[in-house]
Amino acid sequence: MNFVEHIGIAVNNIESANELYTALLGVAPYKMETVESERVMTSFFQVGKNKIELLEATHENSAIAKFIAKKGEGIHHIAFDVNDIESEMTRLSNLGFQLLQEKPKRGADNKLVCFVHPKSAHGVLIELCQSIKDE
Amino acid sequence: MNFVEHIGIAVNNIESANELYTALLGVAPYKMETVESERVMTSFFQVGKNKIELLEATHENSAIAKFIAKKGEGIHHIAFDVNDIESEMTRLSNLGFQLLQEKPKRGADNKLVCFVHPKSAHGVLIELCQSIKDE
Repeated sequence: MNFVEHIGIAVNNIESANELYTALLGVAPYKMETVESERVMTSFFQVGKNKIELLEATHENSAIAKFIAKKGEGIHHIAFDVNDIESEMTRLSNLGFQLLQEKPKRGADNKLVCFVHPKSAHGVLIELCQSIKDE
Repeated sequence: MNFVEHIGIAVNNIESANELYTALLGVAPYKMETVESERVMTSFFQVGKNKIELLEATHENSAIAKFIAKKGEGIHHIAFDVNDIESEMTRLSNLGFQLLQEKPKRGADNKLVCFVHPKSAHGVLIELCQSIKDE
């Protein structure tokens, strides 16, 4: 794990959250991106080498909608940058961590991602992410 | 806000959480520290320039005990490194953010800290922290 690539925050309304986080962080989002497979709209803020990702559900069956229904708006996941996501998945699986994907999947912001079940990590949803470099 | 200084994670048992996060992150905690004023035991892991802080309540009236009672174990706060905490507190207060302290207080890991109320930030507890350099 190289560093905290981003922290994902579940919000009800990404437009109002963008305004608030722009004021809080002193910087505007550098991009917004819809991830159809996850049924979310996202926005990204750069803070040093780290990013804040806001997530709004675009469908009631989105994991983000379910998260907010259960816990309210708030921090949803921590993503760590890794060099080789497949070897990191193998390492964690061998240690007994429960992965939510068998293979890396395409995430927002040009990444390959895989999630570790929060039951494996004291209630914390951990994302591994590897930058896709060849495009 | 310079970068994500650390992410605070509330846990029931810091010893077992230390073992799990050592396996997950591939690195052992570089220190443990009790913060009497906050009634918490903490441990810190370095991941690149960022840190993961585990927090276990040492008293039932600790904010961490109350958080876990309400929400379960999980991510408790995001801390951003700032150069000048007092000017950042003034900036945020002028923007309408509700601060939990009037003056910076002494936190773990040799920092001056101040928290922003989660109601001000879509359910996210934000910590500002400035390194104490003169000691």
